Amino acid sequence: MNSIIYLDHAATSWPKPPGVLQAMQISMEQSAANPGRGSHAMAVKASRVLFEARMQLAKLFHVRNPNDIVFTPHTTMALNMAIKGLLKEGDHVVATMIEHNSVRRPLEYLKRTLGITVDYVRVNDKGELNIRDVEIALKKPTALVVCNHSSNLLGSILPVEEIGRLAHSHGAIFLVDAAQSAGILDIDVERMNIDLLAFPGHKGLLGPQGTGGLYIAPHVDLEPMLHGGTGSQSEEKEQPTVRPDRYEAGTPNTVGIAGLRVGVDKVIELTPKWIYTHEWNLTQQLLIGLKDIPNINLLGPDKGMPRTGIVSFVVDQHDSSEIAFRLDREFGIAVRAGLHCTPLAHYAVHTEQSGAVRASVGVGTTEVEVESLIRAIKQLCK
Amino acid sequence: MNSIIYLDHAATSWPKPPGVLQAMQISMEQSAANPGRGSHAMAVKASRVLFEARMQLAKLFHVRNPNDIVFTPHTTMALNMAIKGLLKEGDHVVATMIEHNSVRRPLEYLKRTLGITVDYVRVNDKGELNIRDVEIALKKPTALVVCNHSSNLLGSILPVEEIGRLAHSHGAIFLVDAAQSAGILDIDVERMNIDLLAFPGHKGLLGPQGTGGLYIAPHVDLEPMLHGGTGSQSEEKEQPTVRPDRYEAGTPNTVGIAGLRVGVDKVIELTPKWIYTHEWNLTQQLLIGLKDIPNINLLGPDKGMPRTGIVSFVVDQHDSSEIAFRLDREFGIAVRAGLHCTPLAHYAVHTEQSGAVRASVGVGTTEVEVESLIRAIKQLCK
Repeated sequence: MNSIIYLDHAATSWPKPPGVLQAMQISMEQSAANPGRGSHAMAVKASRVLFEARMQLAKLFHVRNPNDIVFTPHTTMALNMAIKGLLKEGDHVVATMIEHNSVRRPLEYLKRTLGITVDYVRVNDKGELNIRDVEIALKKPTALVVCNHSSNLLGSILPVEEIGRLAHSHGAIFLVDAAQSAGILDIDVERMNIDLLAFPGHKGLLGPQGTGGLYIAPHVDLEPMLHGGTGSQSEEKEQPTVRPDRYEAGTPNTVGIAGLRVGVDKVIELTPKWIYTHEWNLTQQLLIGLKDIPNINLLGPDKGMPRTGIVSFVVDQHDSSEIAFRLDREFGIAVRAGLHCTPLAHYAVHTEQSGAVRASVGVGTTEVEVESLIRAIKQLCK
Repeated sequence: MNSIIYLDHAATSWPKPPGVLQAMQISMEQSAANPGRGSHAMAVKASRVLFEARMQLAKLFHVRNPNDIVFTPHTTMALNMAIKGLLKEGDHVVATMIEHNSVRRPLEYLKRTLGITVDYVRVNDKGELNIRDVEIALKKPTALVVCNHSSNLLGSILPVEEIGRLAHSHGAIFLVDAAQSAGILDIDVERMNIDLLAFPGHKGLLGPQGTGGLYIAPHVDLEPMLHGGTGSQSEEKEQPTVRPDRYEAGTPNTVGIAGLRVGVDKVIELTPKWIYTHEWNLTQQLLIGLKDIPNINLLGPDKGMPRTGIVSFVVDQHDSSEIAFRLDREFGIAVRAGLHCTPLAHYAVHTEQSGAVRASVGVGTTEVEVESLIRAIKQLCK
C-alpha cells in the first residue's frame, strides 16, 4: 500500500471512494457505448449512467430539472462556457480578487476582444469580502456577477447568498465558481440566487478527473461554446435548443461520469455538512499546530472562523517550493507550492512574491496525518 | 460474459484492450494527482502519464514535437478549437459534403457570427470526392480547407494528401477530422500536409471516452478556446504561449489518458495497416453477404474499393430504425440507425429521408460475428 500522506485535495481529491473505480470498471465492461447516439441496449445503458448522475447532482444542488445540469470535462470548461456564452460587447462584470485564473483569464480575454469592463472587488488580508464593496461595484449597470464560493488559496468563504441577492436586485446574472465548495458547502441554487454554477467532479464530489459540470438556470440562454453532434436534431445547422443536448456536443465521458455518480452518492450519504465539519476541524488542528513556528504567516481566515479545508502559509527565510519539495521527499507528504493560479488573491494577502505552501485536507484525511504534517513542518523550519 | 455482437465501433470502440482498464486502475490508485500543478511525487507521476501518451501519439502520427499535440475531451472539442481559433471575419473555407456536424455546425455558426463563407465540395453517390472539385472551390482566396479523412456514414476515404497539397499551394491551412481514421489509416502529418489534426481517443485509438486530441503544427497559432489555469505562468493575465499548456487549461483527464496510452500502444503494435486490412476484409464480407437482399441499397464505395470499417444501408419498405431496433432486441446485435450527425452526406447519397442503418466493425470483430449480422438482416428482410 501507498504510505503517502496526501494533502493536495484542493487540486484533486485522492483516493476516491472504492466504489468509484468499480463503477468505472462496470461501465467500461458493460455500458461504455455512445450514449444518445444509438438505440441498442448498450447505448441505452450509457444514457442511463448520465441520467442517474444528473439526477444525483440535481439532488445535491437543489436543482429542479436535472437537464439544466450539463457535463463538462472540468470546471474551467464550465466557467468558460458560462462567461463567454453570456457576455456581450461592452458588458460590465463584477468579480472578486480571489478569483482563480479560470475566471480571471476568460474575463481578461473578453476585456481585450469585446471591450468588457471588470471590477475585481477587493477582499481583506484574510480573503474575506465586505458585501458593501459588491454593492459599490454594482452601481454601474452590470451583466454578470461572478465569484468564487471559496478561495483556492485562502479557504475563505464568500457570502454567495447575499451576493446573489444583490446581483439579482441589480438585474445581473450570478455565476458561482464552486471549484472548492461543491460537495463541501451546502449549495442550493434557488435559495442562493445562483443562475450559473460551475463545479468540478474530481475534487469535493470525489469523482475521477475528466468530469465536471455547469448548472444553467432555465431562464438563462448561453451561446453554446461547442457546436457539433449531439445525436439529436441531426438535420439542423444549429445546435438543438433542447437541454442538455444544446450544451453537450461530442461524446461524453461516460466512464468518468459513472465514477462521478458514485462520488456524489457518497457525498449525499455523508452530507456536505458532515464533510465541512470534518475538514474544518482538521484545519483548526493545523492552525493551532503551526501557529508557534517562528516567522510563519498563516494565510486565510483566523482560527475559529469559517473556512474550507485549505491552510496556506509562508515562512520567512524558507522558500515555499523548497518546503513543499522537502515535505514530499523527506516525509512523503504531498502539498503544493506556488501561486495556485490565483495571482490577485496573492496581492490581497501580500504573498505575490513568495507564493505560498498550501495544505488541503479531504474527506478521508485523519488527525494523525495532520499531526504528521505539523511535526514535519516544525522540523523543516527549525 | 456478454454475448452481445457489438458493431457500432464508428461511435465508440468496444471492448477496449484489457490493459486499458488496468492502466486506468493503476492511475486512479497511484498517480491520479493533478499533473503540472504540484511537484510532489504523485503529481510528477501524473505528468509522466500525459508525457508518455503524447510521445506515443506523436510516434503514431509522425509528429516531431509531442508538445504540438494537446489533449481534448473529444474530437468535437478539437475541431471547435481549430475552426474557431483560426478563422477571422469574412474568411473563406472549403469543406466537403461528408463533414460531420462537429465540422459543419461550427462553420455554420461562424457564417452567422463572423460572416465567413463556406463551399461544401460535392462528393459522388458513393461518397467519393474528385480532387478537381476542390481545386475549383480554391479559386476563391481560402483561409482553411477542412475535411473528413473518412466518412462516418459511408466509409469512403478522401485523398487527404492531395487535398493538403492543394490547400498549401493556395496558402490555406489544412485541418483533417480523423474521427474515423485515427488508428485505422496511416497518418503522417508532414507527408500529408496536415496543419491541424483532430482525433478521438475512444474510437480507433482504443482508449476510453473522455479522451481525444488536436495536433497543431508549430507554424499555426490558434486563439485558445479555453482560458484558465495551466499551473504555469500563473501571474500572467493571458494564457501561456508555451505548448501544450497554451491549449490545455483545466485539470486534464489523467486517468482517461493513462488508458488511451495503452490503446495507442496496441495500435502501434498491430499497425494501422493491419487494422485497416482486417476491417476492410470484414466490410467486403458484409457487402457480399448483403448484396442479394431484395431492395437493399448498400451505401458507400463499391466492393473492392478502399473504405474504412463502415457499411451503411437502406432497405426499401423497411424502416432503418426498426431494423436496428430488431437487430438489438431479437439478435443481440448493436448497430446504429439514423442520420449519424452528417445530414449533407445523406443528401449526397439520397438517403436524407430514410436515414440509414450503419454497421461498423472494429479491431476485435470476427468473421463469425459478421456472418451473424448477415443472417439476421436476411431474416428481418424476408
